[in-house]
Amino acid sequence: MFKKQRHTAEEYVQGILNHDRILLSKAITLVESKLSSDDKIAEFILEKILPFTGQSLRIGITGVPGAGKSTFIESFGKHLTSLGKKVAVLSIDPTSQRTNGSILGDKTRMEELANDPNAFIRPSASGNTLGGVHSKTRETMLLCEAAGFDIILIETVGVGQSETNVKGIVDFFLLLMLAGAGDELQGIKRGIMEMADTIIINKADGDNVKKCEIAKREYQNALHMFPPAANGWYPKVLTTSALNKSGLNEIWKVIGEFEIVTKESGHFYSNRQGQNLRWMHDVISYYLHYSFFNHGSVKEQINYVENQVKIGSVSAIKAAKSMIGLFM
Amino acid sequence: MFKKQRHTAEEYVQGILNHDRILLSKAITLVESKLSSDDKIAEFILEKILPFTGQSLRIGITGVPGAGKSTFIESFGKHLTSLGKKVAVLSIDPTSQRTNGSILGDKTRMEELANDPNAFIRPSASGNTLGGVHSKTRETMLLCEAAGFDIILIETVGVGQSETNVKGIVDFFLLLMLAGAGDELQGIKRGIMEMADTIIINKADGDNVKKCEIAKREYQNALHMFPPAANGWYPKVLTTSALNKSGLNEIWKVIGEFEIVTKESGHFYSNRQGQNLRWMHDVISYYLHYSFFNHGSVKEQINYVENQVKIGSVSAIKAAKSMIGLFM
Repeated sequence: MFKKQRHTAEEYVQGILNHDRILLSKAITLVESKLSSDDKIAEFILEKILPFTGQSLRIGITGVPGAGKSTFIESFGKHLTSLGKKVAVLSIDPTSQRTNGSILGDKTRMEELANDPNAFIRPSASGNTLGGVHSKTRETMLLCEAAGFDIILIETVGVGQSETNVKGIVDFFLLLMLAGAGDELQGIKRGIMEMADTIIINKADGDNVKKCEIAKREYQNALHMFPPAANGWYPKVLTTSALNKSGLNEIWKVIGEFEIVTKESGHFYSNRQGQNLRWMHDVISYYLHYSFFNHGSVKEQINYVENQVKIGSVSAIKAAKSMIGLFM
Repeated sequence: MFKKQRHTAEEYVQGILNHDRILLSKAITLVESKLSSDDKIAEFILEKILPFTGQSLRIGITGVPGAGKSTFIESFGKHLTSLGKKVAVLSIDPTSQRTNGSILGDKTRMEELANDPNAFIRPSASGNTLGGVHSKTRETMLLCEAAGFDIILIETVGVGQSETNVKGIVDFFLLLMLAGAGDELQGIKRGIMEMADTIIINKADGDNVKKCEIAKREYQNALHMFPPAANGWYPKVLTTSALNKSGLNEIWKVIGEFEIVTKESGHFYSNRQGQNLRWMHDVISYYLHYSFFNHGSVKEQINYVENQVKIGSVSAIKAAKSMIGLFM
């Protein structure tokens, strides 16, 4: 048997702070590890790098399959590195656990960005790990920040639960759409639209430019009918052609404007504080539920009880109380 | 000291099933009671009446203050009783716990409906009771169903958390708006728009009719840009004048259409099953969190730890683990 080469916790920390990508990658693997033996070292690393996190701008990007997310992220990422930024791309693909990692996939679909020395692309492990999909992504994000990345792009597929989780860890949320809303809307999860800080109509090239301009106006009108977000920011609508690399600077300008406005109002910081707090409560909640649902008698009876409740033959309250009774 | 007259649990059950409003009212008071001595009898009553619940149509109604909710509910309620329906109105006012009950207030502001023998108006207790605001309202709703009410209208003020909770217990969700969206939107909580099965533009009377028609078209266009709900229902937009009692039958027709469509697709039933299940999980979650946050050491340290997490001097995961360690 080969003995896998391991580093000490301190070596990981120093490596990350020295912007060493190989050690960064290995540390992310440790954080994502399901081995409890890796937990302690991962926790040590995270606590050590914590003071060096938080300086990046965290951007969530979502959109239905077909909206051109990969091309957009590649073009936008290249645009950012051309401005001297260091960009980390974390993509959350709920299907990646089935295909057992899409690292190759990610690197292939964003080849140019993957070869950019100022970019770092990493699929983020999904699945039922501690605190849900977002907890590991959040930790990975912190590691990337400590490793000197200025901008973290977090990509999700726009059709599941992960968007809500990503919204809970980013500063700014981009929604990628196409012109010809009717059909593609079917794929978008209700509620995602109201999370967006900016909607981008992609593929505004060739014959499609006019359609995109119409879609832009329609979205602007639609958003106008919706209440403003808590931060007072009115979502913008922009068009882009990720293919022709047009509109990218406008998007970056809007994000800059958002950063200034919300930093001046203080919302940028209070949002992050609230996210930290919710994260803690999510983890607490996860542990409480984990120990409840893995309790012997609860585990045995929960399916039966759930069915009784669903069909209404026992009230939810009585059922809940009886399960809690088993647990306590 | 006077001895308060009490009934046996069986008397409450029989009274409710015989459509006795006085016993219904008293049973609701028991359910809402914070005395643990009332818990057992309330639970008994609920289990007994459970087989006689579920036959009503449950309608949530919300809108900002000023949208004319009281007048609308009074007119709509009268319209329904004129069709031979028995209507219960439960209003959730988060402020009512401060003013210590708005029973008189509710009856005054819906005087005509309050005097209708086929209507029953009851403010629903708010506050941090078991499972949050909606749990008691849900139980009250069940009691009203067992007491023979065909339609339950549940009213909230449209600016807080209660809407999400109400959405979780009703079949159909109405949002009351006014023409001249810009200003009033400020008061509406983001996300509520996407919960609505129908938006009603109220006060379409006098000089305001034309403005309401414009607003109607604008909302229709806006909703068209948003993805359809899981049940496949496209939200409708209607105008009404609760004052002139116009448009009420159109609203009732849309609700009827919704009922037919979702019953045929089965979504009506699966939605209720899902609601039951979530209710159970909410209660379980409530108990778990209650025992956690009331644990001696947790209670002592939580504020300090929360602050540390907010300012980022300890990671959320480490903080959560240490709190869980105290609890376990």
